[in-house]
Amino acid sequence: MTDLRIKRIEHIGIATAGPDNEKLFERILGRPMYKEETVDSENVLTQFFQVGQSKIELLSGRGNDAITKFVEKRGPGIHHIAFEVENIQLAFDECQRMGLQVLNDAPKEGADNKLIFFIHPKSAGGVLIEFCQDKG
Amino acid sequence: MTDLRIKRIEHIGIATAGPDNEKLFERILGRPMYKEETVDSENVLTQFFQVGQSKIELLSGRGNDAITKFVEKRGPGIHHIAFEVENIQLAFDECQRMGLQVLNDAPKEGADNKLIFFIHPKSAGGVLIEFCQDKG
Repeated sequence: MTDLRIKRIEHIGIATAGPDNEKLFERILGRPMYKEETVDSENVLTQFFQVGQSKIELLSGRGNDAITKFVEKRGPGIHHIAFEVENIQLAFDECQRMGLQVLNDAPKEGADNKLIFFIHPKSAGGVLIEFCQDKG
Repeated sequence: MTDLRIKRIEHIGIATAGPDNEKLFERILGRPMYKEETVDSENVLTQFFQVGQSKIELLSGRGNDAITKFVEKRGPGIHHIAFEVENIQLAFDECQRMGLQVLNDAPKEGADNKLIFFIHPKSAGGVLIEFCQDKG
C-alpha cells in the first residue's frame, strides 16, 4: 500500500462569509479563538480554535480570493480537510507517483508556520485535501 | 460562555457516489478501512478509517436517502463534522437553550454504537454539525 505517512487531522478549514462568524463558532465550540493570522499570498484571514488534537480554521476572503469565490458559488461551509504528514516533500512526491492531481508545484508556505500543498477534489472523491507539516 | 463540552473531532463524514470509493481513500490515507456498517434508519452504508484520534466516515446512499440527495445536488465531498461531547443529553439541551436549530427531537441511535443529533447548517455557518457520544 502507498503511504503518505498521515499522522492526524491537523485541521478542518471552514469558509465563512466574514470574520464575524468567529463569535458563532466561539459559542458552539465553547472556547475562544486562540489565533488570527492573515495569509497575504492567498488574501485570506484565518482564525483558529483548538479541539482535541485538531483545529478548526475559519477562513474569510479579503477580496478576489479563492474563499470569496467558494462562498459566492456554494455558500459558507466546510472547505477542506488538512492532514499532517511526517515529511511534506515525501508526501508530495508520493502523491505525484500515485497520479493524484497536485495543485502546487512544490510544498509552499501556509498559515500557522506550515509547509502545505493541496490535491484537487477530482482526485479525492470531491474532497479538497491539504497536506501539511510544521516548519519546525 | 456556553459549553457543549466538546472533547474532540470524532469524525468527518464524506458523502461518496458509492461504496467503491473506499479503495481510493484506502490509497490516500495509507491504511485499510477497519469497519463497514449499514445504518438502516438512514438507508446509508458507512465505512470507517482511523486517523489519529478521529475517524473518516465514508457515506454511501442506498436509495431515497439524504446522502444520495446531497451527492445529486452538490456532488460527492465533505458532508458533516462530528464532535464528541461528554454528555449527549446535556449538549442537546444546551443547543436548544442557545437557540440553535436542532434537527432531531431527541438524541437518536447512529452508526458506530453512538447516540447522535445534528444541528442545521443555517445555525452553524453553513456547516452540518453532528454531536455524538458512545452508548458505552
